[in-house]
Amino acid sequence: MKRPFSVLSFALFLLAAAPDMYSQAASAIPKASVDEAAIRAAITAQVTAWNNADIPAFMQSYEDSTETTFIGLTLRKGFQPILERYKTAYTTREQMGTLTFSDLDIRLLQDSCGKTEFATATGKFHLARTAKGEAKKDDGIFSLMWRKTPLGWKIILDHTS
Amino acid sequence: MKRPFSVLSFALFLLAAAPDMYSQAASAIPKASVDEAAIRAAITAQVTAWNNADIPAFMQSYEDSTETTFIGLTLRKGFQPILERYKTAYTTREQMGTLTFSDLDIRLLQDSCGKTEFATATGKFHLARTAKGEAKKDDGIFSLMWRKTPLGWKIILDHTS
Repeated sequence: MKRPFSVLSFALFLLAAAPDMYSQAASAIPKASVDEAAIRAAITAQVTAWNNADIPAFMQSYEDSTETTFIGLTLRKGFQPILERYKTAYTTREQMGTLTFSDLDIRLLQDSCGKTEFATATGKFHLARTAKGEAKKDDGIFSLMWRKTPLGWKIILDHTS
Repeated sequence: MKRPFSVLSFALFLLAAAPDMYSQAASAIPKASVDEAAIRAAITAQVTAWNNADIPAFMQSYEDSTETTFIGLTLRKGFQPILERYKTAYTTREQMGTLTFSDLDIRLLQDSCGKTEFATATGKFHLARTAKGEAKKDDGIFSLMWRKTPLGWKIILDHTS
């Protein structure tokens, strides 16, 4: 009578342990890495779009909201005014040139519910180009505030100086 | 027999309704206003501290963390390096002068748990002063990232240009 009981016990143990084993497997990739990777991918997509002289694609990393803010020499509020400003400041492929980012530092901000829905990113930019329009700076430093939205991680505040 | 029952019913109704009535009274001041007022108070405290030439008191609005970041002409990370930089850049009361902020815009960032633990603030600064040290700018624009901590709302990222 001992063996069947042991087998049953072991089966029950497996059933009880299964969810935990599953969650351990799922957490082999830490959530933080997934969020950081998503932000890095959005930044890489921006660089690719910029270097294709595709401002609307570049803007995809910003939240499409009237609250989205860009600070350069002045402050601009709203996705559409920011898009228009990029179009005015960089009118040709030559004025856009080739963008590179460096010293990228991403900080995920966990809230008290254990969720990560906000993040900051800081870094430097460099533009290699043969022409300049209204935007004069080829080198600078930026800070970005990110929010995790249903459409993915999006920039809600960009300060570039 | 009807009246005592009615009185009892009414008493029970009052008991049941009390928590709801209490919460309605408590929410007469919206939570958002409380958070925004707390951030405005922290900013006002900074201005007062600055104009008293008290850099350590001014720094009380920053989170005391090695992650706290200040971006001016360069990026500095850590509460202590930021404090040291302020002390080096502004060595006398005359170099600090009188600080004023304008165009202050605070954006409270609610998370999916319904809590508000992060916020951004943007605005302009002006220094009226009779002497300059290492820090040359008298006017500029800033963006601040705030986090609600057990010690109150604190700046975790300051970008001033």
